[in-house]
Amino acid sequence: MSKRQLKLGANLNGVGNSISFWRHPEVPTNASVNLAFYKEQARKAEQGKFDLLFIADGLFINEKSNPHFLNRFEPLTLLSALSEATSHIGLVATLSTSYSEPFTVARQFASIDHLSGGRAGWNVVTSPLEGSALNFGKGEHPHHSLRYEIAEEHLEVVKGLWDSWEDDAFVRDKASGVFFDSAKLHTLNHKGKHFAVQGPLNVARSKQGYPVVFQAGSSDSGKDLAAKSADAVYTGHETFEQARAFYQDVKGRATAYGRQPDDILIFPGIGPIVGRTEEEAERKYQEIAELVTIDQALNYLGRYFEHYDFSQHALDEPFPELGDFGSNSFRSTTDRIKQEAKEQGLTLRQVALRASTPRSNFIGTPEKVADLIQQWFEGGAADGFNIRTVVPNGLADFVDLVVPVLQERGIFRKEYESDTLRGNLGLNVPVNRYIRQAEAVRGN
Amino acid sequence: MSKRQLKLGANLNGVGNSISFWRHPEVPTNASVNLAFYKEQARKAEQGKFDLLFIADGLFINEKSNPHFLNRFEPLTLLSALSEATSHIGLVATLSTSYSEPFTVARQFASIDHLSGGRAGWNVVTSPLEGSALNFGKGEHPHHSLRYEIAEEHLEVVKGLWDSWEDDAFVRDKASGVFFDSAKLHTLNHKGKHFAVQGPLNVARSKQGYPVVFQAGSSDSGKDLAAKSADAVYTGHETFEQARAFYQDVKGRATAYGRQPDDILIFPGIGPIVGRTEEEAERKYQEIAELVTIDQALNYLGRYFEHYDFSQHALDEPFPELGDFGSNSFRSTTDRIKQEAKEQGLTLRQVALRASTPRSNFIGTPEKVADLIQQWFEGGAADGFNIRTVVPNGLADFVDLVVPVLQERGIFRKEYESDTLRGNLGLNVPVNRYIRQAEAVRGN
Repeated sequence: MSKRQLKLGANLNGVGNSISFWRHPEVPTNASVNLAFYKEQARKAEQGKFDLLFIADGLFINEKSNPHFLNRFEPLTLLSALSEATSHIGLVATLSTSYSEPFTVARQFASIDHLSGGRAGWNVVTSPLEGSALNFGKGEHPHHSLRYEIAEEHLEVVKGLWDSWEDDAFVRDKASGVFFDSAKLHTLNHKGKHFAVQGPLNVARSKQGYPVVFQAGSSDSGKDLAAKSADAVYTGHETFEQARAFYQDVKGRATAYGRQPDDILIFPGIGPIVGRTEEEAERKYQEIAELVTIDQALNYLGRYFEHYDFSQHALDEPFPELGDFGSNSFRSTTDRIKQEAKEQGLTLRQVALRASTPRSNFIGTPEKVADLIQQWFEGGAADGFNIRTVVPNGLADFVDLVVPVLQERGIFRKEYESDTLRGNLGLNVPVNRYIRQAEAVRGN
Repeated sequence: MSKRQLKLGANLNGVGNSISFWRHPEVPTNASVNLAFYKEQARKAEQGKFDLLFIADGLFINEKSNPHFLNRFEPLTLLSALSEATSHIGLVATLSTSYSEPFTVARQFASIDHLSGGRAGWNVVTSPLEGSALNFGKGEHPHHSLRYEIAEEHLEVVKGLWDSWEDDAFVRDKASGVFFDSAKLHTLNHKGKHFAVQGPLNVARSKQGYPVVFQAGSSDSGKDLAAKSADAVYTGHETFEQARAFYQDVKGRATAYGRQPDDILIFPGIGPIVGRTEEEAERKYQEIAELVTIDQALNYLGRYFEHYDFSQHALDEPFPELGDFGSNSFRSTTDRIKQEAKEQGLTLRQVALRASTPRSNFIGTPEKVADLIQQWFEGGAADGFNIRTVVPNGLADFVDLVVPVLQERGIFRKEYESDTLRGNLGLNVPVNRYIRQAEAVRGN
């Protein structure tokens, strides 16, 4: 058997992952609505044989929001356009189950899957921001556990709709005039607690069966949803130990649901900063960090805590006690921030600056970054990584400098194995549920 | 002043406008999910200097549905991909206000508008098919008048969200760190009967201000909505007199709402069949018509009447009396069918065959088709036409044979005037409502 292969995603996010990124001289300030910029990034990732492009999303802004969030492409329309600029790389878009209709979601992702020849993926999120409810006519944002209950049912409905047509349902015989075999058309008739959807869907399955399903919440509910229903998890961890614990937790939960550990891939998100020397990498980080003011940093931190106003606290005192604040939004992030502040005795200023210009351990020479990646990959902490761009040309640096090292070590492909996302990720094409049921009846 | 110019749209619909179309030897049977087919059509239309591509849509299928409806691309994702295969032609997608969220609709169309450099358009429909409700967890499909009430509010919310950012709101000054001017960011705070949407939208306006708004219902409610709020109307008429009456009705309603007649463009949909001779054109129609069986024709007709089962009636007796049946779906179409059957004493068989393979007057030599187009255009019945493909290569025939005649006569462009859809249609860029309000306050 050939050596287990690392998977790579490129998290594309316009003017940036950090609030000061756009101010750097080398960053186009309109990047978030600049298709030429996205196409260049997409092609660079494909040149680097990345498995997928990954587009994050959010449904609420106010004047304190990160520049990238204020004015950006909507993910599904963006990926549809990028499908034309690329040929092999997967196309993963974030879409919330809290504020969408399963029929529309199933249809739009299936459509991208056909447009791209089987390269689509859906990153399932439940919308962390409370304000999202206000843009969708809801009295209040559903509580964390309710959002995950909704997400689980939503995802089941979407998968059910994706199975509306068996793979060979379309006969298309001109001579007889038979366009399809009605025995291979299935009506879902879902009636659940949160959704009632009859079906069938008006799009067939693509050659990868279902779009690949990512899940991006790291709370207990998020991990359970992923373990039960997702093909991959997008997560974030500061240390190898944390990442490994998470990895083993999710794989264990998947096994408990009767799945194989390889059926679900864990992708920590990292923002590598690569220099030809340690000093060059360090300088790149400093160039970005120095562009943030403390006011901006406090605003940015507040966003994770339901737009909490941190400016009411002293900057150089210990990070304030917030009780449950933040527990209904980005829970895993706020828990981590609180815990680190406590354990390391950080002041509010330190926490804010660190949060606004995150700094990972993946900083240094190509060999050092490759070493860390290999350690996480081989040490049971990651199946792949989602690469965020945190310094100008960060993706290009990674492709040009780190990818060759990983290829040299035999842990990353030199050519695509497949033209579908599922194929490149090594995931099975899901068998249509109606065929599976018929086989079960026949005792297969 | 230069001569008034005709506008042209290409209604792209895969395996077809008629139920037998896919059986023709020259039609790819997978056309509705074949991107290469759509790209070829889109490029042909752009070569013919068409103003726009137009994608129809529907939200409910069953085993009796038209082949094209069973398995097709979703319009917004399709147009996003086609934006990359074209450079000047407009991109108009159909989306229902009865089963969508204004925030998502505003966002996806604005995103296509940015991706395409100002070429997006939205065809507002209210979903004629009763069954749509079953795919969106609704107990029942809203009645016709309620659907239009919802549509009017939905469209107002979407336009309000499109005005969230003034055109010069994004300062993006690297030196000062000012990304945007918060005085030019506006929160809609809409609280209406059917929608509550706070905003702001997380996408700026494109260079055409708003995507172009089409409206496609021809009932009284549809005409009123169009007259009040749309830039263009997609309609369908059998005769010049009907088209002229409709045209003058809508222009009159628009004037009553304080608009100029030129602020709203009327596009009848036609399915021209062009031959080098009359006989060639006639032969093309017959080739398609002969592929339909009477059973298929009855099913097709039933779809307009809430899936009414016409097979219970005698084929060669007068068209049955249906009372109000069909009045809550495609009302203008069913009214027309009933009226024609009565006036012309048609049998059920005749009505079904005519409905399943529609035959317009726009059939014959290029000169004859151009004559009719010119008559409607200059006689107050049309500002432009949406060209449907009803025979194989119908669009290419129109571009190659009819467009040169229209250009020769000086009523159709030889080059695009603009790179935005609004620019080519000769429509004004809407002034942002907050600027308009501020100007009103200052007495401008």
